[in-house]
Amino acid sequence: MQGNLVIAHGGGPTAVINASLAGVISEAKRSPKIDRVYAAKWGIEGLLQELFVDLTDMSTKDIERLKNTPSSAIGTCRYKIKEQDHKKLLEILKNHRIQYFLYTGGNDSMDTCSRVSSITRDIRVVGIPKTIDNDLAITDHCPGYGSAARYYALTTLELGLDVAALNIHVSVLEAMGRNTGWLTASTALATEIRGNAPHLIYLPERPFNEDKFLDDVQKAWDRRRGLVVAVSEGLVNEQGIPLVRARHETAVDGFGHVLPGNVSQYLAELVSVKLNIRARSEKPGLIGRASKALVSDVDLEEAFTAGSFAVKSALEDRSGIMVVFHRISGEPYSMEPRVIDVSEVANVEKKMPDRWSCSIFSSNCLEEKQ
Amino acid sequence: MQGNLVIAHGGGPTAVINASLAGVISEAKRSPKIDRVYAAKWGIEGLLQELFVDLTDMSTKDIERLKNTPSSAIGTCRYKIKEQDHKKLLEILKNHRIQYFLYTGGNDSMDTCSRVSSITRDIRVVGIPKTIDNDLAITDHCPGYGSAARYYALTTLELGLDVAALNIHVSVLEAMGRNTGWLTASTALATEIRGNAPHLIYLPERPFNEDKFLDDVQKAWDRRRGLVVAVSEGLVNEQGIPLVRARHETAVDGFGHVLPGNVSQYLAELVSVKLNIRARSEKPGLIGRASKALVSDVDLEEAFTAGSFAVKSALEDRSGIMVVFHRISGEPYSMEPRVIDVSEVANVEKKMPDRWSCSIFSSNCLEEKQ
Repeated sequence: MQGNLVIAHGGGPTAVINASLAGVISEAKRSPKIDRVYAAKWGIEGLLQELFVDLTDMSTKDIERLKNTPSSAIGTCRYKIKEQDHKKLLEILKNHRIQYFLYTGGNDSMDTCSRVSSITRDIRVVGIPKTIDNDLAITDHCPGYGSAARYYALTTLELGLDVAALNIHVSVLEAMGRNTGWLTASTALATEIRGNAPHLIYLPERPFNEDKFLDDVQKAWDRRRGLVVAVSEGLVNEQGIPLVRARHETAVDGFGHVLPGNVSQYLAELVSVKLNIRARSEKPGLIGRASKALVSDVDLEEAFTAGSFAVKSALEDRSGIMVVFHRISGEPYSMEPRVIDVSEVANVEKKMPDRWSCSIFSSNCLEEKQ
Repeated sequence: MQGNLVIAHGGGPTAVINASLAGVISEAKRSPKIDRVYAAKWGIEGLLQELFVDLTDMSTKDIERLKNTPSSAIGTCRYKIKEQDHKKLLEILKNHRIQYFLYTGGNDSMDTCSRVSSITRDIRVVGIPKTIDNDLAITDHCPGYGSAARYYALTTLELGLDVAALNIHVSVLEAMGRNTGWLTASTALATEIRGNAPHLIYLPERPFNEDKFLDDVQKAWDRRRGLVVAVSEGLVNEQGIPLVRARHETAVDGFGHVLPGNVSQYLAELVSVKLNIRARSEKPGLIGRASKALVSDVDLEEAFTAGSFAVKSALEDRSGIMVVFHRISGEPYSMEPRVIDVSEVANVEKKMPDRWSCSIFSSNCLEEKQ
C-alpha cells in the first residue's frame, strides 16, 4: 500500500524512546511505499488535534542525535481514546493519507493500538513496546527497562558505597514500577559486589507488613550498620491497599490509576520513630528513566530495532500486532524481534514470577539476601 | 622530619574523595622523609580506636583504581573531638610515630584540624578541602562540589526533558546543601538549553514564603505546563525556621545539626492541594554525591591535587593550614593550589552572595528565569 506513515508515543518517556522513533524514521525512509513520515506530537491526544510534524527529510546525522537523546522529542500523552474520538481519528488519518499507524507504549497504549486496528481495516497498525516497568506480557523484556534497570543497579551500588562510608543510617531507596517489581528487583544486581546494597528488597507483588518490615530492618541493623533498603513505589498491605496514598485528587493519571504517595519517606520515618535508627529516603523518581549516562547500549539498540522492525512488519501488510523480543539464548545473549497479536498484551500486566522472588530474596516479599 | 603519615576523612563522602586519598598516597610514597602511609578508618573516630591501615605498598594500578571509585574507601565519620579525647589522640599519634596528620573535610572537619594543630607542635597538620556543599570559605571552590554540581545540572536537564514530554505536572527537585544554595543554584546550568528546566529555584539563604511560592508556581504554570522547581533541602521561613523538620530525634547529626525533612514532598503536596496542579517530587539525595558516571574530570583532578599538595605542604614543615584553590583565570580556566591558616575556615560557612542570586534569579529567593 502506498501512503504516509504516522508514529506517536503513549505513556511515560524513557531514556531510549527516541531510539525507537529513530528506528522508525530510518526504516521508513528506505521504503518506496512510504511517502511521508509523520510524527504526531503528544501521542494520540495530539494526533486528535492534528499536531503533525513531518520527519521525512531528517538527516542521518540528526537521526543519530535523536537516537542518543533521552526523553521523547515528540512528546507523549496519558490519554485513553474514547468511543466518540473514533470518527475524528479516522478522518484525520484519511486526510493525511495515513496507511501506516505506529504507536509506542506499554499495556495501556497497546489498548489504543488495539482500538485503532479494530475500527479500520485500511490502515496497518503496529505497536512498539516501551515501558521502564517491564510489565508487558509475552515479550522477553521491554525497551526502556534495560536502561532504567541499569540505572537502579548502578545507583544502588553507589548508594551502598556511600552509606557504608558512614555506617550510621538506613537509606530507603524508592524504585518506580507501580504494580510490578521488575525495577525494584533490578537493584539486586548491585549485590554482585559481595555484601553491598541492597540489604533488603520489597516488591509490590508481595503484601507488605509493617511489623515484619521493622523486624527485618532491626535484624539487618544488628548485623551491620549502613543499610540500603530498596522498596517499590507501589507497595500495598495485606488488603491490597497502597501503603501510602497520594493525598490529593490531582494524583490520578489519565487512565484513572491512582498514583502512589511517597513510600520511601514514609518508611524512613517509620524506622526512625519505631526503631530509633537514623533513616533517610532517596527517591530519584523520574530521574531514573531520564538518565543518558546510564543508558544500556543493548537497550538502546533494541529500542531502535523495535522501531525499525515495526515498520518492516507494517510493510508486510501485517496489522493489529506488536513487536516483541524472543529470547534465542541467554549466554551468549541473543534476541530475535517477532510480532504477536496486540490484543494479547493490551491491558495485561506481567508480574514478577513468584519463583524468582523466592530464590532471589528468601521470604514473602523479600528478606535479607542469602 | 622523618616519620609516618596518617590521613583520615570527616563528613559525608563525595564522588571524588578517594581521589584526594590517592593524591596523598602517590605524593607521600615519593618522599624519603615519610616511612609509612597510614589511613585511619572511619575518620577521627576510628583513629581514636587505632583503626589504622597501611597503604604504603599500594600499587600504582590500585591507586589509579582508588582515584576512580566514588565514596570513601577508608570510611569517614561525623564525630566532633572533645577535650577528653586530646590525651588519647596524642598518645596514639606518638605510638604510630606520626609526623604528618592530614584530615579531609568541610568546615566542621577543619575544626578538628585546628584542634589537633593547637594541641601539638610536633606534628604537621594539614587540612584537605572536601564538601559537595561548597561552603568552605576562602577557597575558590571545593573538591567534591564540581561533580555534585555537574550531577544536578545534568539531572535537571534530563528531568526537564522528561517533564516536557508529558507536560502535565510540576516536579519539585530537592538538592542537597543544608545551609547554602551552591548545589541548588547549579541546577541553573541546565538553562543553557533555552526554556529548559529549572523554571523556578529556591535557595536556603533567602527566606521562603509559601504564598509567594504558590503564586510563583501558578504564574509559571499559566505560561507553560511541565515545570521543574529546584529547591534546597534546607529551606527556612522568614523566622529562620526550617520549612520541614525531620520528625524524630534520630535526625540529628554528630555535630548536633538538626537534619532537614523532606522539603520536596512537602512542597509537591502543597502545589497539589492548594493549586490543584498535579505535582510530584524527585529527591536523589545521597545519589547526587555518589554518582561516578557524572563526575567532573576537572573536579577529579583537583581532588587529587588537593591531596598531593597537602603532602607537599606538610613536607615543607607547614602546619595548621588547609589547601585552597586560588583562581588565576576563569577563561581559560586556571587554578593554583595554595595554603591558608586553617582557623580561617574552621566553622565558617560561605553563603551564596546576594548579588549572584539577584542576577541569576530575579527576586528575593528567586523567581522564574528571565
